[in-house]
Amino acid sequence: MTTHPLTIDLHTHILPPTWPDLRARFGYGGWVSLHRCGTGCTRMMQDGRVFREIQANCWDPDVRRAECDAAHVDVQVLSTVPVMFAYWARPRDTLDVARLLNDHIAEVCAASPDRFIGLGTVPMQDPDLAARELERCVRDLGFPGIQIGSHVNHWNLDAPELFPLFERAEALGAAVFIHPWDMMGQERMPRFWLPWLVGMPAETSLAACSLIFGGVLERLPDLRVGLAHGGGAFPSSFGRIEHGFRVRPDLCAVRNPHPPGRYVRRFWYDSLVHDGEALRYLIGFAGADRVALGSDYPFPLGEAVPGALIRSLPGLDDAVRARLLGESALAFLGLDRAALPRISASSPGRRETPPLDRAAH
Amino acid sequence: MTTHPLTIDLHTHILPPTWPDLRARFGYGGWVSLHRCGTGCTRMMQDGRVFREIQANCWDPDVRRAECDAAHVDVQVLSTVPVMFAYWARPRDTLDVARLLNDHIAEVCAASPDRFIGLGTVPMQDPDLAARELERCVRDLGFPGIQIGSHVNHWNLDAPELFPLFERAEALGAAVFIHPWDMMGQERMPRFWLPWLVGMPAETSLAACSLIFGGVLERLPDLRVGLAHGGGAFPSSFGRIEHGFRVRPDLCAVRNPHPPGRYVRRFWYDSLVHDGEALRYLIGFAGADRVALGSDYPFPLGEAVPGALIRSLPGLDDAVRARLLGESALAFLGLDRAALPRISASSPGRRETPPLDRAAH
Repeated sequence: MTTHPLTIDLHTHILPPTWPDLRARFGYGGWVSLHRCGTGCTRMMQDGRVFREIQANCWDPDVRRAECDAAHVDVQVLSTVPVMFAYWARPRDTLDVARLLNDHIAEVCAASPDRFIGLGTVPMQDPDLAARELERCVRDLGFPGIQIGSHVNHWNLDAPELFPLFERAEALGAAVFIHPWDMMGQERMPRFWLPWLVGMPAETSLAACSLIFGGVLERLPDLRVGLAHGGGAFPSSFGRIEHGFRVRPDLCAVRNPHPPGRYVRRFWYDSLVHDGEALRYLIGFAGADRVALGSDYPFPLGEAVPGALIRSLPGLDDAVRARLLGESALAFLGLDRAALPRISASSPGRRETPPLDRAAH
Repeated sequence: MTTHPLTIDLHTHILPPTWPDLRARFGYGGWVSLHRCGTGCTRMMQDGRVFREIQANCWDPDVRRAECDAAHVDVQVLSTVPVMFAYWARPRDTLDVARLLNDHIAEVCAASPDRFIGLGTVPMQDPDLAARELERCVRDLGFPGIQIGSHVNHWNLDAPELFPLFERAEALGAAVFIHPWDMMGQERMPRFWLPWLVGMPAETSLAACSLIFGGVLERLPDLRVGLAHGGGAFPSSFGRIEHGFRVRPDLCAVRNPHPPGRYVRRFWYDSLVHDGEALRYLIGFAGADRVALGSDYPFPLGEAVPGALIRSLPGLDDAVRARLLGESALAFLGLDRAALPRISASSPGRRETPPLDRAAH
């Protein structure tokens, strides 16, 4: 019934409409709480400070489906908001919150399996707990993967402690989508939203470099990793990174003897770069089969009409556009298009289609 | 006598061959000291740790001229190594070191005015002292500008404390070249040279955003600012930065109501991106008249043959290549080509040409 190419928005965020008072539940602060601030408006608060105001499209699947229809998005991939990662907390408490968030996403997906696919969140600061919740996400909740932060407290993603989690993700065929959070230098950037505009691109580059130089991608050849925001500063800094590796192997090649270029196409990159030439550079850098529509919906720093930049970029042939709009996301998620429930936008919530089967990968 | 376009390397570093023991001189540590480690090799040490090994091309003008000749570089713009900024120290001590470094650069330039142009360093942590040393650099030493760090301790470049210094630079017609240093997040990046590969591009973006959002460029329309390393992550993050400004003016437009796009061509960007497509993106982003050869000579993270990437990039016409190789640098420095001493590579040290006149600007 769709005349446009299958369109999957790989990078969207969702929250439950409410959750318990986590400070009361766990006995310490730092948690996000929700406070209504009007019809269809909720304030996310952290220790008495406003973190962000959100609207109904952040929690209401009906609103999300309607906005997807308007933007010709067939499927949204749902993940939590990075502030909810809570890697700083007691691991069991983070697990508790992760289960709550994951169960909510699973419910939303189950109610509209043709429109929503879920990515879980796991307590990365305790890799054992994280691996168990990852398994539950994949096996019980039917998620094709998880979303994780660009680092975990004082661990970068090459920390030996995290390796078993990535190993488990590879074994399960679970995709790992990396989102910047807890931005470096934020204490030095009190104004102008710079942790989001400067810190986030750096975080994503840090995550990519850590997985490369730390040998994680080398040791796990089948692990599928996605990078938010077009890979942040990684693609544009790549020349510097590769050159650095070549001239100072004593510093760069200490854990992995192979040059970074070997891994450029091991990542998928979402398309959220807000600029046609930057998107073109990214496609040239990674290949259209490694760039996937991602909008950061429903947040203002995202693409207001998901897919608009891809659709408007001149000079792409239909096959390339189809990759960018949906096929690259399917490949990243390890999903087979034939196994996707048929889109039934006109009857949200219908369940006549079977739940997603993960493609053999 | 040159058959190639006038070629100016805007981004090179130089140090004096020796200097006094600064710990003994000032009574506290943190300073860089030099220790011979063989013929033509010196170790830069900081508090007993090796910062970097350098070779004769870091201090010997004869070696530099020979390497320039081999690379078809007519003129090097000399600046200190950012670790020498020492903004963390007692301001009078930093001034003392700055004068030593500036006087050395002035001597090297005076001995070969056809081959070397100097940029000064100033104690930015004390803007009054900095302004006085800036004046000395311009008026007494004949420098067309200064090199500064991407931030000054806890001040970003929009700090009101720094504004008078920039105002003075504009009034003097002095170019300001910004080099990343003291990299954000370095405490979280102990391995793989990541402060240089990830932190530096972020630092340069931070500096550019601070000058834009803080209104410094708006208030000083004639201030000329250069960014090292192709502007770091700023050009590739620009779509995100501009979009951020548009969707959250409450956060971004608090000091300056104009969108960031207004200032893209207020910067000059050196060409040090180590990748043809990245250089092409940069030229498209800023215009060839705003991109200037810069190699980070003589350090390994720089371009081994300064100008090689510009010369080898297919599809540039001669006029564009001439801008990239030399004319953009002249414009940034505020120098008139006609006023440049004639290149006399075969007779280093000859003084028959007058010292540089700064062009009316």
